[in-house]
Amino acid sequence: MKNKRRIDLNCDIGESFGPWVMGNDEAILPYVSSVNIACGFHAGDPTTIMQTLALVASYDLRIGAHPGFYDRQGFGRREIQMSPKEVYDLMVYQIGALMGCVTARGLSLHHVKPHGALYNMAAKDALLADAIATAVYDVNPSLALYGLSGSELTRAGLGKGLHVYHEVFADRTYKQDGTLMPRSDSSALISDDQQAIEQVLRIVERGHVLSVDGSSVAIEADTICLHGDNSKAVVFAKRIVDVLHDHNIEIG
Amino acid sequence: MKNKRRIDLNCDIGESFGPWVMGNDEAILPYVSSVNIACGFHAGDPTTIMQTLALVASYDLRIGAHPGFYDRQGFGRREIQMSPKEVYDLMVYQIGALMGCVTARGLSLHHVKPHGALYNMAAKDALLADAIATAVYDVNPSLALYGLSGSELTRAGLGKGLHVYHEVFADRTYKQDGTLMPRSDSSALISDDQQAIEQVLRIVERGHVLSVDGSSVAIEADTICLHGDNSKAVVFAKRIVDVLHDHNIEIG
Amino acid sequence: MKNKRRIDLNCDIGESFGPWVMGNDEAILPYVSSVNIACGFHAGDPTTIMQTLALVASYDLRIGAHPGFYDRQGFGRREIQMSPKEVYDLMVYQIGALMGCVTARGLSLHHVKPHGALYNMAAKDALLADAIATAVYDVNPSLALYGLSGSELTRAGLGKGLHVYHEVFADRTYKQDGTLMPRSDSSALISDDQQAIEQVLRIVERGHVLSVDGSSVAIEADTICLHGDNSKAVVFAKRIVDVLHDHNIEIG
Amino acid sequence: MKNKRRIDLNCDIGESFGPWVMGNDEAILPYVSSVNIACGFHAGDPTTIMQTLALVASYDLRIGAHPGFYDRQGFGRREIQMSPKEVYDLMVYQIGALMGCVTARGLSLHHVKPHGALYNMAAKDALLADAIATAVYDVNPSLALYGLSGSELTRAGLGKGLHVYHEVFADRTYKQDGTLMPRSDSSALISDDQQAIEQVLRIVERGHVLSVDGSSVAIEADTICLHGDNSKAVVFAKRIVDVLHDHNIEIG
Repeated sequence: MKNKRRIDLNCDIGESFGPWVMGNDEAILPYVSSVNIACGFHAGDPTTIMQTLALVASYDLRIGAHPGFYDRQGFGRREIQMSPKEVYDLMVYQIGALMGCVTARGLSLHHVKPHGALYNMAAKDALLADAIATAVYDVNPSLALYGLSGSELTRAGLGKGLHVYHEVFADRTYKQDGTLMPRSDSSALISDDQQAIEQVLRIVERGHVLSVDGSSVAIEADTICLHGDNSKAVVFAKRIVDVLHDHNIEIG
Repeated sequence: MKNKRRIDLNCDIGESFGPWVMGNDEAILPYVSSVNIACGFHAGDPTTIMQTLALVASYDLRIGAHPGFYDRQGFGRREIQMSPKEVYDLMVYQIGALMGCVTARGLSLHHVKPHGALYNMAAKDALLADAIATAVYDVNPSLALYGLSGSELTRAGLGKGLHVYHEVFADRTYKQDGTLMPRSDSSALISDDQQAIEQVLRIVERGHVLSVDGSSVAIEADTICLHGDNSKAVVFAKRIVDVLHDHNIEIG
Repeated sequence: MKNKRRIDLNCDIGESFGPWVMGNDEAILPYVSSVNIACGFHAGDPTTIMQTLALVASYDLRIGAHPGFYDRQGFGRREIQMSPKEVYDLMVYQIGALMGCVTARGLSLHHVKPHGALYNMAAKDALLADAIATAVYDVNPSLALYGLSGSELTRAGLGKGLHVYHEVFADRTYKQDGTLMPRSDSSALISDDQQAIEQVLRIVERGHVLSVDGSSVAIEADTICLHGDNSKAVVFAKRIVDVLHDHNIEIG
Repeated sequence: MKNKRRIDLNCDIGESFGPWVMGNDEAILPYVSSVNIACGFHAGDPTTIMQTLALVASYDLRIGAHPGFYDRQGFGRREIQMSPKEVYDLMVYQIGALMGCVTARGLSLHHVKPHGALYNMAAKDALLADAIATAVYDVNPSLALYGLSGSELTRAGLGKGLHVYHEVFADRTYKQDGTLMPRSDSSALISDDQQAIEQVLRIVERGHVLSVDGSSVAIEADTICLHGDNSKAVVFAKRIVDVLHDHNIEIG
């Protein structure tokens, strides 16, 4: 039995845009060890980024860039058919932009996690995954890459020699092959908090997850994605943190 | 008599956007020592920037970021009333973005020159100028700042301890106080190439310029702004280079 | 004593954008007789507009276009130096876009009210005001124009023969010349609801307003601008409606 | 033998954006009978549209809206996964915007032709096609719809009772089922002008096209798409016009 004693908790933040507020960044920060900050393409803008960094600066957090497609109306969740070369350029630009902001604030950038449709496409498409991993590496080879556990993206990151964080989800169900059930499936989301917590514990303590058909599937887990977009999400985050502490699992 | 033996020649490049081409970057590169690359706000986009860097990589050039207002339709030439704090954020983001691209390409960023309305506003508005100089400093204090010679912007840059390049123009007329005649004035532009060349020589060799009312005005000159947007501009650039060589003035 | 028996109440709605929600449109609709819908430049997008129209369709409301500068990050509140010709084009496009949506929904467009910085600039700048009035007229001369009471914009609208609605504010103070105290002044806003209601009654029933220096200033009032962006605003809207009913003043 | 005596020639225009010029609209206008004007999403902007209409006003042309995805960098040529409902909204907005501009100019809108990836996706996807046809109908049922001959889009348009123009291409090859060879295929483009002209004549005079495997395929043809983006294209347009005249085929 694998018994991991440490797990990172990450959350997407900085997803406001201009006058429009999204999420409750301040409320979730006490419960996470990593944050992924929107880079101004699917969400965020220069001022939102700097305000987000001002919040983040009070905590001891791993700061990540959260680049996405340039599609604000669709929040980066709609697939756009870009070539791997275009995706490489898109990544390099957004990572650099966030790095500029982070540096100006006197902080440092730890990782990159692609957002939304880009994340999902890179999980399956080896060419996109490679373009993304190469972009991260070319901007700074010491940056870590967060990607879906066991996906093409984490494979590509390892191939480039990057420090890779396998990401797992508390509130998503898994297929027998270790991939996520697509959101289009009615069983894709875990709405019961207790069930989500059991999934987290199983993944962190035993290194496997129960797939939708009931079989046990081995899964790498370096970081868990938490949400901070509503008060219920914050309550759940607090609960996860408490449960992990109770199980002597360190967060970070 | 001041006798400067070296001057930098700079040009704005990378001003295409998506499928739309602007300028003839390849033709102007042999004649300049510095380039200012649009950062994706008033012009340029991630792919255009990377393609521009691929061109630039064959030359030994000082590479600069050329950030501007987020106003593509107006090409960053329309004033937008942003607060100094917003301008700071705007600058940090764009400098970072270009730095990410430059780094990914294995090159390094030398300077920052604001574009269009931002350049003009920062020449006169001390608060904007300070926001810009501070942004450059905060991203990387070893970056140089290019600004209108004798303006609020160069003053702000010197105040932050930045390496400042005073920029002069071959094709613009000057007022008695050393500032540019506004474009709205019919005498603002020098269309005669010979007159433009004489102005350049006077500035570089003697350290002063003839103002529109005929008086001699002292002027700092570290770099001359050349244009590359049409074939006439490229011919003029070549001619300036030849004249400077003939006068034993080094370029760079 | 002038005793007007009818007043229009208008509210800006449809100011969400993509995934970002702004305001509480559903809550304010029962209390107003006119709505101004953001046209996709400073706020709104095609889908937000159509969803807003679906809400609006259940009420008997005057539907207006609320065009603004193309500056989502700044929510159209930052001045942009556009020429009158450019502003004309900007208006024609946005009015047409909203008219297309309104028509597709089987509704009809009643008026146009410029937004934010465009509204304020057009109140003072006769050339911009004329560009806006001409754009409204050229798209459809039967459209009404909402503008600041007694401003260059209402003057321009009347000059074109448009049906003009003079707009007044419940929560803003006025100068002796009938113009609004600038927001930069500490006395610009009326935060006390009772004082705001008294101002409304004085304007509607007597046709004048008390200026900040205590003098009585004649003012045209066809419509009052209400806000719907928070629950306090909705409470105030309900209260205004009740007070107007108590005073036998019809809304609409 | 079918012997059609009239064909429409259409061209995409108004594809400049802000300071960036694309195409040579003025040169192609004398040779076409219909124009499709970019609506500000994949190309064009309010001022470009009005300038384009000023050009168009001197000719007797059918004026069409040419709406596309909101993706300027990709010029609307990259597929974006939008729902049929979102595409409906996108269409209604853009058609309305162009109609506003056309009306303000004193002209009238004749048709709608989707652009780029939207055109290609709607040719194959019945749900998208229906969303587009419904949007056209809902804005104004007397608008015509231009779509790929024999595609889902023309089928959807006919289903809504719209006046449909089947579009054919002079410079593209066809498969045995009457659809276009995909651009990814090396035989997709006809670069030989003579061959292109023969294809046009065969389509217009005989109502069929030779597919890449040499078989004769029946094809509807109401309009031919010409390009105006370079001088070679304009020369070809002139030649097609001359040939059609020589064959007593009326244009329009």
